[in-house]
Amino acid sequence: MDNYKKIIEEIYLDVKNVDDIGKVANYIPELAHIDENNFGVHLTSINKLSFGFGDCNKKFSIQSVSKILSLTLAYKFEGAKLWDRVDVEPSGNPFNSLLQLEADFGKPRNPFINAGAIVICDVLVSHLKNPKKDFLEFCREISDNKNINYNEKVAESEKISGFRNVALCNFIKSFGNIKNDVDDVLDFYFHICSIEMTCKELSEIFLFLADEQYINKKGESILTESQAKRINAIMLTCGFYDESGEFAFRVGLPGKSGVGGGIVAIHPDEYCITVWSPKLNKKGNSYKGMLFLEKFTTKTVSSIF
Amino acid sequence: MDNYKKIIEEIYLDVKNVDDIGKVANYIPELAHIDENNFGVHLTSINKLSFGFGDCNKKFSIQSVSKILSLTLAYKFEGAKLWDRVDVEPSGNPFNSLLQLEADFGKPRNPFINAGAIVICDVLVSHLKNPKKDFLEFCREISDNKNINYNEKVAESEKISGFRNVALCNFIKSFGNIKNDVDDVLDFYFHICSIEMTCKELSEIFLFLADEQYINKKGESILTESQAKRINAIMLTCGFYDESGEFAFRVGLPGKSGVGGGIVAIHPDEYCITVWSPKLNKKGNSYKGMLFLEKFTTKTVSSIF
Amino acid sequence: MDNYKKIIEEIYLDVKNVDDIGKVANYIPELAHIDENNFGVHLTSINKLSFGFGDCNKKFSIQSVSKILSLTLAYKFEGAKLWDRVDVEPSGNPFNSLLQLEADFGKPRNPFINAGAIVICDVLVSHLKNPKKDFLEFCREISDNKNINYNEKVAESEKISGFRNVALCNFIKSFGNIKNDVDDVLDFYFHICSIEMTCKELSEIFLFLADEQYINKKGESILTESQAKRINAIMLTCGFYDESGEFAFRVGLPGKSGVGGGIVAIHPDEYCITVWSPKLNKKGNSYKGMLFLEKFTTKTVSSIF
Amino acid sequence: MDNYKKIIEEIYLDVKNVDDIGKVANYIPELAHIDENNFGVHLTSINKLSFGFGDCNKKFSIQSVSKILSLTLAYKFEGAKLWDRVDVEPSGNPFNSLLQLEADFGKPRNPFINAGAIVICDVLVSHLKNPKKDFLEFCREISDNKNINYNEKVAESEKISGFRNVALCNFIKSFGNIKNDVDDVLDFYFHICSIEMTCKELSEIFLFLADEQYINKKGESILTESQAKRINAIMLTCGFYDESGEFAFRVGLPGKSGVGGGIVAIHPDEYCITVWSPKLNKKGNSYKGMLFLEKFTTKTVSSIF
Repeated sequence: MDNYKKIIEEIYLDVKNVDDIGKVANYIPELAHIDENNFGVHLTSINKLSFGFGDCNKKFSIQSVSKILSLTLAYKFEGAKLWDRVDVEPSGNPFNSLLQLEADFGKPRNPFINAGAIVICDVLVSHLKNPKKDFLEFCREISDNKNINYNEKVAESEKISGFRNVALCNFIKSFGNIKNDVDDVLDFYFHICSIEMTCKELSEIFLFLADEQYINKKGESILTESQAKRINAIMLTCGFYDESGEFAFRVGLPGKSGVGGGIVAIHPDEYCITVWSPKLNKKGNSYKGMLFLEKFTTKTVSSIF
Repeated sequence: MDNYKKIIEEIYLDVKNVDDIGKVANYIPELAHIDENNFGVHLTSINKLSFGFGDCNKKFSIQSVSKILSLTLAYKFEGAKLWDRVDVEPSGNPFNSLLQLEADFGKPRNPFINAGAIVICDVLVSHLKNPKKDFLEFCREISDNKNINYNEKVAESEKISGFRNVALCNFIKSFGNIKNDVDDVLDFYFHICSIEMTCKELSEIFLFLADEQYINKKGESILTESQAKRINAIMLTCGFYDESGEFAFRVGLPGKSGVGGGIVAIHPDEYCITVWSPKLNKKGNSYKGMLFLEKFTTKTVSSIF
Repeated sequence: MDNYKKIIEEIYLDVKNVDDIGKVANYIPELAHIDENNFGVHLTSINKLSFGFGDCNKKFSIQSVSKILSLTLAYKFEGAKLWDRVDVEPSGNPFNSLLQLEADFGKPRNPFINAGAIVICDVLVSHLKNPKKDFLEFCREISDNKNINYNEKVAESEKISGFRNVALCNFIKSFGNIKNDVDDVLDFYFHICSIEMTCKELSEIFLFLADEQYINKKGESILTESQAKRINAIMLTCGFYDESGEFAFRVGLPGKSGVGGGIVAIHPDEYCITVWSPKLNKKGNSYKGMLFLEKFTTKTVSSIF
Repeated sequence: MDNYKKIIEEIYLDVKNVDDIGKVANYIPELAHIDENNFGVHLTSINKLSFGFGDCNKKFSIQSVSKILSLTLAYKFEGAKLWDRVDVEPSGNPFNSLLQLEADFGKPRNPFINAGAIVICDVLVSHLKNPKKDFLEFCREISDNKNINYNEKVAESEKISGFRNVALCNFIKSFGNIKNDVDDVLDFYFHICSIEMTCKELSEIFLFLADEQYINKKGESILTESQAKRINAIMLTCGFYDESGEFAFRVGLPGKSGVGGGIVAIHPDEYCITVWSPKLNKKGNSYKGMLFLEKFTTKTVSSIF
């Protein structure tokens, strides 16, 4: 991995100049204001390599990338019982589809589509005394980073325009797979989506998925090794909505994208890398982010396959 | 990997005694006759480890496992152009579904569902002078094994009862994504499915997906390293129909199953392992095969994640 | 029609003794309490024939039968523009499905599935100053019947358990086809469903669809003749969810059912007939109600075909 | 009905000059050659009124209109048992969709979508000694018209390009709902579609659906009164693919269209009317044909509603 820094810098400069055919997500009004030229990348390895380029220290809305964090905490609480509530299969459909939910009687296909992430939030609301506060605490302790916060404006903006998510949550509740009050679950869900972090912070917080020995500052492990591997598996098969196969095919790493333009990817036993570029391709994943990561794993021959 | 032999033997004996709740596939009449107690496993590593247990040297119908071989040859011929004809996304639906095909205008979701494998056959019929003969030759040369053959009885049995596949092929042709005569394509498809091999032979023939330096006896490589990695990626996301996520989650290796009860799994840079047990779970994958592999990667901590 | 009274009495007695294999709807808690042996029928003809049998003067929850009344008022307000908001095609799916709504970008298939009826309510909320009060007033004036009321308990019961309808309304709003506040629209919708009437009252209030000369006590017509015919047409093709074809086939009259067990059927230029029996078949339509009407139109040879 | 001739002539002249935004069907090559300006209309009443305008005596390919004839003969043979093989519900999907067929395990939604008509052909192949010859004989005897024939060129043209129908037939056979050889069933199906008749001939042959006393020259009735009514009901709910609701709404008569541009409509107890104009709207129904019929039933106030 000694030459990774040089390779990453080269690819960064190369992709920076590529004509970006993506578009900034506009369905969450507050997100549409972002400067679309932001472009950052950061890598943190399990043996303490750490470097980044471009806008890697700017905060951005991590959106669905946060679904890994909520899943992690719910998995800690529930263990394997969690999979009675949500499946681990790729959906083959766009991220906010209700189609399969109807066929599967309210059990979402996986925890990374919106339906599944909402069920995960419901699980957490059942376990946490002060869901929003406690969840933030959990995130901060993973990588000893006090500097992780919700963006209330973004959360509010999602709430105002989030009719599809309100529909999803009520639809699942009609099948009995939401136990708490719909408003409470969604308020929590919208807040989790609004978390802001930098590329550097993201590549640090998800090291626990790359490093089987990972412990936080308090000396606690986050998940068991088997659990961490299983989350990686779900990221690989389901992390990019109906483009998950394409990401596995082109990049070959477990990963997760968000409509804020961030992508986190994990190489088990080696590193976590984060890219951020706000313009999205048609499937809702960062155009330059995917391009960067494809070039990166190709040049370093470091896909998991 | 020194202790793998002992671990595998233990798990083999353990799983052998498990009550098998699966059922032998009966929709291909000729396959229904198989002795359902067959159970074999074989591992071949890239550094020449080779051992097996149980019925690992009995021939069985590899069925859909052959789809890796046809995909490999089509990919050799067409390169990246192949993906204009077939996608690389998990389907989220059973193996013989026509649903998504209609929504996607005749472009199958991936080369491992029947629809995709039929399109792959069409590609090969366009390239090969004597498709059936030439394809067998290709298979034999990979691992220098003259002993690979079609089972004409099984091929005939599939043809007689294969109305769903005839439907799929004509449906795709109605969208223009089959170029050759439907009967020629299907005759080739049914023959490929009827290939018979042993666990040992299968774990040898697919070494080219595990070993980036693999060359056959003639000194030729089978695919480029990048191509081999990409086939592994497709196997991981799409190799087990609508149970692909579950296999990635529980086993964590690229793999491919067949309704004959065989499962092949690859650990890149390490080994290829094959299990065979004819009774299938509800999703059409070998019940004991999946159980064996889950225990194996758990005990050896050798999933790719 | 002179012999209709005798025929209806015979069929009434005949069907009364039939073993009822249906089940009372239980998804609205307040409705589950009804005495399932209630069975009433009433016919009112355009030339003032009027008679009934059994529980024809007991109030019951008319549920979806009220969708004819809301459609009528919305059609009065909007004319043909209404069909930009909701289609007139049978859905081929259960009454509360979200499937087609997604494919049709939020335009419901017809005004009688829940999705369409909710859009109709949204139209009315836009037009009416005091929706609940004004709508009741409209209903009362049609047949000069002051005795039509909401059942607040039922409305409340539907609201508490109506997650699927909340999902539908938010889902449609996400496509922009709900203009008012979701809570206002649904409160109105749940109230309309809770209206209580007797068989006799129902067969009188819908005479305006049978009688092209119909005028209410104030001397006003309810719809134009062409509009009335078109509502009859929608009732015939869409009035019984995914059993509409069956009702047309077996009964052969425009009609509308409700989960309270009521069915209204119209013979244009002749009569309106109402049956009520709370136990529903699998498709959600009154088992005895359908049986009664099939025998009735067969014996009187009075289907419209 | 005295003034119908004058009204029809007026509407004919009016619609003749309307700008036709439809398109001639081109998926059956042999049909694409037709002169798109053909426009004919003919009415025959049960009390022997008979008149037509324009190209009402030119033969054209009646295509799916023939599905009424095959259904009639199958219904004669099987009676109510027929509905075990095919349902009577509108499909809510385009005419050649495979979607619902999968959900309904091979039972087509109704006898007028292609899937259902193919099952009907299978029923007839089981009953008829020489299906093609015997069926033609049946058609000729209905209205004592020797001049009804298949167009072999069109039948051949459909066969060569009919991959979708081959797919449908094999798909249904995979569910066990086709009993005979697929090639035999489809050869018969393609021939039935190729029948050629004039507007005049069509309005005569379908009189048996309008006239409950209808007998042919041999003194035989075609169907029982109840059966004829039920076929009318299916025509109303299912006769125009996913535009059936629209036709009921705008025209208000049982009817059936074909991609050759013909539409037959029945007014029970009164008349049968046929229009022909080859250019089709987006749903596959004659653009001018629907327009003509809407104006006709509006002006004569003669819809069944």
